[in-house]
Amino acid sequence: MHDFVFHNPTKIVFGKNAIATLGETCAAYGRRVLLLFGGGSIKQNGVFQAVMDQLSDADLSVTALGGVQPNPIASHVREAVQLVKESGIDLVLAVGGGSVIDEAKAIAASASMGRDIWDLVTAGEPIQDALPLVTVLTLAATASEMNSGAVITDEETQLKLSIGGPALYPRVSFLNPAFTVTVPPDQSAYGAVDAISHLVEPYFTHGTPEAPLSLAMSEAVIRTIRKTVSVVLKDPTDYNARATMMWSATVAFNGLIRSGYGSTGFPNHMIEHGISGVFPHVAHGAGLAVVIPAWLRHMLDEKQSLIARFGREILGVTGEDDKAAAIQTIDELKSWFAAIGAPVNLRDLSINGSDIPRIAEKAAGVARYWGLKTYDAHRIADILKLAESA
Amino acid sequence: MHDFVFHNPTKIVFGKNAIATLGETCAAYGRRVLLLFGGGSIKQNGVFQAVMDQLSDADLSVTALGGVQPNPIASHVREAVQLVKESGIDLVLAVGGGSVIDEAKAIAASASMGRDIWDLVTAGEPIQDALPLVTVLTLAATASEMNSGAVITDEETQLKLSIGGPALYPRVSFLNPAFTVTVPPDQSAYGAVDAISHLVEPYFTHGTPEAPLSLAMSEAVIRTIRKTVSVVLKDPTDYNARATMMWSATVAFNGLIRSGYGSTGFPNHMIEHGISGVFPHVAHGAGLAVVIPAWLRHMLDEKQSLIARFGREILGVTGEDDKAAAIQTIDELKSWFAAIGAPVNLRDLSINGSDIPRIAEKAAGVARYWGLKTYDAHRIADILKLAESA
Repeated sequence: MHDFVFHNPTKIVFGKNAIATLGETCAAYGRRVLLLFGGGSIKQNGVFQAVMDQLSDADLSVTALGGVQPNPIASHVREAVQLVKESGIDLVLAVGGGSVIDEAKAIAASASMGRDIWDLVTAGEPIQDALPLVTVLTLAATASEMNSGAVITDEETQLKLSIGGPALYPRVSFLNPAFTVTVPPDQSAYGAVDAISHLVEPYFTHGTPEAPLSLAMSEAVIRTIRKTVSVVLKDPTDYNARATMMWSATVAFNGLIRSGYGSTGFPNHMIEHGISGVFPHVAHGAGLAVVIPAWLRHMLDEKQSLIARFGREILGVTGEDDKAAAIQTIDELKSWFAAIGAPVNLRDLSINGSDIPRIAEKAAGVARYWGLKTYDAHRIADILKLAESA
Repeated sequence: MHDFVFHNPTKIVFGKNAIATLGETCAAYGRRVLLLFGGGSIKQNGVFQAVMDQLSDADLSVTALGGVQPNPIASHVREAVQLVKESGIDLVLAVGGGSVIDEAKAIAASASMGRDIWDLVTAGEPIQDALPLVTVLTLAATASEMNSGAVITDEETQLKLSIGGPALYPRVSFLNPAFTVTVPPDQSAYGAVDAISHLVEPYFTHGTPEAPLSLAMSEAVIRTIRKTVSVVLKDPTDYNARATMMWSATVAFNGLIRSGYGSTGFPNHMIEHGISGVFPHVAHGAGLAVVIPAWLRHMLDEKQSLIARFGREILGVTGEDDKAAAIQTIDELKSWFAAIGAPVNLRDLSINGSDIPRIAEKAAGVARYWGLKTYDAHRIADILKLAESA
């Protein structure tokens, strides 16, 4: 096991009436709230009104800003920071999925530090200062509700990079599984893929038999997600399945499970950021479903025994021979992704082989920022070619 | 899944050089430190000196108090609180296992609130106010280093009760697995039993298939502990096995895994507190190893399918029939405990059948304080009879 520091101060309020204390919680951090949200779905399903009622009951002054995109962009962060200044905002309340929460983190840091968001992103320093952040989660996927990271895209350069730091942990996150029953099947599936990707990346980049607790807990959570997502897809209104998905996705990436690995690389995320950087229509989880099997195939020789273990523990793979089991694992993983309606190759994403160089170039830019030194555009293109079809 | 609130703000610094930042960490909370410890083991293995060096390098004023007993007693808490007042102590630094940390919590609360410890224990109110607490862990077992509970014994009445509340989370806990390599085999085994008991109790009292994540994570951690404890017993100096044991024990009872159950009962702990309340020579983990199989046998009909699942997932139990599998599970659990050198019946603890009424009476007193309404002395005696021999 590696040395580590674990400190996650986010308070989680989980359950059917989770937001019953939202108003008083926000009031503890100030009177003027920036309410950030995405598209109109929370206005249709009643969540927006329920949140507004809470804030109004607590006599808070609310500035609402919608329009956060699925891959949040720097220009919208800047617009929000301007609003924060003009309105003397005390805290940011994110109501939405990972994109809304990520953008809220970017706003909270940029406004508090008085620095442009892209300066902060490219500087890569840990964020030590930010406005207080409270979240109401509406999508099980990214765990941004209980971690200190955020991903932002610069629409000019199409670069999709991240910020992180202790000031970005939400103070309180409200998780009501009932708020996710209207999430459509494709988004539910992509959310599941995204959640497992947060366990898969540390598992395969830094997992070793010397960190048995991290491996075993990762497997337990992935198995749980695998069983649960099919229940969700069969009956999207199944509260208990939605609850299990929601908490599993949070636990998957709140820092606890991967602690024993010491470090984590995110090569699959890096490549996916290349894809959705160039093709913003691609949902993050959908891109990951395409990248992960290809990356595993690329790493087959190096990670053979770990891939085989993953398949045996999670996907019902049998057989003594590690290499055969590892190959079977990748096939089973693709079958699983396909079965829940996720894409498994670039063609499924309407991306052609001729687009690969552009994506690889973009991903290589992310790799440089993330210190993934062994990944250049050439190697990334090789991996993407494995994702081209079938 | 049940509704829950999860909020664990303890910072964990884990690894070989974990205490390198102990001095500056303590200095952030004040200048005058009460250094609390137990017997002399930390003076023999160098931990005491390493801690003193850290505090001295940070120019802190140290009042050292040893003599914390394995089941910490109220009178020693009072002695320490007196010292805290006389010396104007700013923070409590616990260096030891769960007993030392538990007593430190009691001291921190009693001193800060100006109330006698037994008043606090019997009042049963959540502790909202306490001196800052920092810990250096030397035994993998109780998870007191990352939770908000503490168990204290009143030596006059032999009652062993608990306090808990948000103010009792340690601010920072330093976990250096190397500090545990001198723990003898029996204490290592009892620590493992104690750690799994913190997963076993919620699993069997409130576990349901509706909380699949909690069940699966519990099983993952118990399997890991089971594999690891035999490595520790074979080679007590195996750093990696000690590290896995240490972090597994912490994760087992920091609140995260059981969150989905909604609530937790601790009937096995209640009965064990009866045993070690009357017989203070009994180590907590040793008492639990005797109680758990008897309690499971007592609950056989009610919890049959869950016991069978536990055996199949963790102990290699096979067979379709739940009742047969459940019985086999209890046998396998006893075999495992016996194999690691833990006692499995009262005779192993040098306790006779004639002592049962006295233990049951004491445990029933704990049951009343803990709201375990279905447990009276008669029922507890029935369970203890199942633990008498064989």
